[in-house]
Amino acid sequence: MLNFIYHVPTKIYFGKGQIKSLGAELEKHAKKALIVTGQGSVKKHGIFDDVVKEFSAAGVPFAELTGVKPNPRLKSVYNGIDICKKEKADFILAVGGGSVIDTAKAIAAGVKYKGDVWDFFTKDIVCEDALPLGTVLTLAATGSEMDTYAVITNEQSQRKLAFGSKAVRPVFSILDPEYTYTVTKYNTAAGIADIMTHIFEEYFSEPYSAAVPDRMSEALLKVCVHYGPVACENPRDYEARANILWTSSLALNDMLDAGKRGDWASHAIEHELSAIYDISHGVGLAIIVPNWMRFVLNNDTARKLADYGKNVWNIDGKNEMEIANKAIDKTISFFKSLGLPSRLKEIDIGNEHFKKMAESAIECQGEVGSFKSLSASDIVEIFKMSL
Amino acid sequence: MLNFIYHVPTKIYFGKGQIKSLGAELEKHAKKALIVTGQGSVKKHGIFDDVVKEFSAAGVPFAELTGVKPNPRLKSVYNGIDICKKEKADFILAVGGGSVIDTAKAIAAGVKYKGDVWDFFTKDIVCEDALPLGTVLTLAATGSEMDTYAVITNEQSQRKLAFGSKAVRPVFSILDPEYTYTVTKYNTAAGIADIMTHIFEEYFSEPYSAAVPDRMSEALLKVCVHYGPVACENPRDYEARANILWTSSLALNDMLDAGKRGDWASHAIEHELSAIYDISHGVGLAIIVPNWMRFVLNNDTARKLADYGKNVWNIDGKNEMEIANKAIDKTISFFKSLGLPSRLKEIDIGNEHFKKMAESAIECQGEVGSFKSLSASDIVEIFKMSL
Repeated sequence: MLNFIYHVPTKIYFGKGQIKSLGAELEKHAKKALIVTGQGSVKKHGIFDDVVKEFSAAGVPFAELTGVKPNPRLKSVYNGIDICKKEKADFILAVGGGSVIDTAKAIAAGVKYKGDVWDFFTKDIVCEDALPLGTVLTLAATGSEMDTYAVITNEQSQRKLAFGSKAVRPVFSILDPEYTYTVTKYNTAAGIADIMTHIFEEYFSEPYSAAVPDRMSEALLKVCVHYGPVACENPRDYEARANILWTSSLALNDMLDAGKRGDWASHAIEHELSAIYDISHGVGLAIIVPNWMRFVLNNDTARKLADYGKNVWNIDGKNEMEIANKAIDKTISFFKSLGLPSRLKEIDIGNEHFKKMAESAIECQGEVGSFKSLSASDIVEIFKMSL
Repeated sequence: MLNFIYHVPTKIYFGKGQIKSLGAELEKHAKKALIVTGQGSVKKHGIFDDVVKEFSAAGVPFAELTGVKPNPRLKSVYNGIDICKKEKADFILAVGGGSVIDTAKAIAAGVKYKGDVWDFFTKDIVCEDALPLGTVLTLAATGSEMDTYAVITNEQSQRKLAFGSKAVRPVFSILDPEYTYTVTKYNTAAGIADIMTHIFEEYFSEPYSAAVPDRMSEALLKVCVHYGPVACENPRDYEARANILWTSSLALNDMLDAGKRGDWASHAIEHELSAIYDISHGVGLAIIVPNWMRFVLNNDTARKLADYGKNVWNIDGKNEMEIANKAIDKTISFFKSLGLPSRLKEIDIGNEHFKKMAESAIECQGEVGSFKSLSASDIVEIFKMSL
């Protein structure tokens, strides 16, 4: 097991009706807040009303940034920074899914930074300070509610990039499974693909001896395999929504890669796709990940992929290579069973940008991934396999 | 899944050489510290020297409380409180295992309390404030390094009781697997029984639908089953020590019972044993737990015990009852294989205090346990089965 520091002070309020805890948290952290929301669903489904009630009870005034899109744009971040400065907001509350939370994080960092917030994404500059922020989560997917990362798309440069800082880890997050009841089947499925891929990125990496995070990864993958289809079929199944929601947070709160190297090639590859084609991140991952698995499968990696097959899918076989291949087949058929596409052409993506995207994916480090290090030509090959 | 609040801000420094982080933490939290240690092993094995070097580098003076015993005594707590007050210590560092940490917690609470610290254990008084404390862990067992509990024995009244408060959760804990190399095989085995029982107490409880904590419980039990024997056989196996050490913290840091009811009958029963006979807590648990399992096994509970058999031990069988019974057999033989006793008579305990201990175990609440609620006569029966 590798050395690590684990420090996750986000306070989680989990369960039905937990919004009632918001007021007390606001009283602790906020004199005036910016509320960030997405494209209107939280207003349509009454969640925003619940939030406003808590603001009123706590006597905390707020400004608003609305209309944050999936694959959230830098433009929204700039808007949010302007509003915060103008309104003298000292706290940000994200009410929505990962895109809304990531936008809130970038705003929180940008308000306290003299330069252009995009620097944190493109330059070797660490964000040391940010406004405190909290979240009211409405979608199980990114894990942003408990982690230190934000992914933002710069529309002008067609770059989708991430930055990370402990200064933007939410101080609290409210996770009410009932707030995810109205998520469509397709978005629920894409969220599950996103959650599972977060786990894969941590699980498929060295060292093999790190049994604690690896057994826990398998545990959370089993929850996805069991409850994912239930949540898709019956969106108001509380237990399915609850288990998937809590899994989304635990999948990316530093626990599953504590002691491990992490891979993150699939994310680097998919971010290029969604930067250019504006597809759902989870949909892109559902297509890319099984092909990444097949591409990296060799005599060295078969053992780990076979563990995945045995411990998550109960697959048996005559050797590790066979079990690994069956596990990849099973992954493909699982994502398909949730209604997700398995080919780029199904979402109208052709081979026109493969080379450009591959080169962009490796631009920062010259390669991506640690389970198997990938060059630009490797990534083109994975794109071709995904076509 | 039940509603829960999860908030674990303890900062963990995990891995070899992490003691180097102590100085910076002391600078943040301490003007003058009390260092609490046990019966000399940390001094014998050089760990105390490592700690003192960090105090010197940070320029933080310290007083000492030494000689804390297993099943730590209230008398040591009183001594520690006196030293803290006299020396004006504003921070406590526990260097040792669970007994040392629990003593440090009780001192931290007692210093800030006007009454008798034993009130927190016996009366309905909540500890609201405590000195901040950190730990340098040398034994994988209690999970006290990341939790809110302390268990102390009052020798006079022969009561071993717990109290919990978020005010005594360590602000940081340093977990170096190499610091556990000198733990004897017997104490390593007892620690593993303690860790596994913490998991059992959370796992064997309602609701059945809480898949996230339950799959993670199985994951950590599998780590114990795999690496426990390795750590016992080869005390300097870094990977075994590392995996067991991190499991000890995760087993009791609020994660495995988030969304669950918890049981805790086995702990209540064992605490009576170690209060009177001063045996190792883990040894007592290794004897009691399998008999508790057998006693609570019925048509309602078989499903969960069968899950344990299937998912942890890969046991197959013609029905849940058969798998459950085989899983209990397997638990007994596993503890035996680690060199632990499986009968009270092996550690010279007879039936002389069964009734007294059973009545004392249920004194506070009239019964113990939630998986199956136990009366005093039930507990006597479990003691008899354990004889």
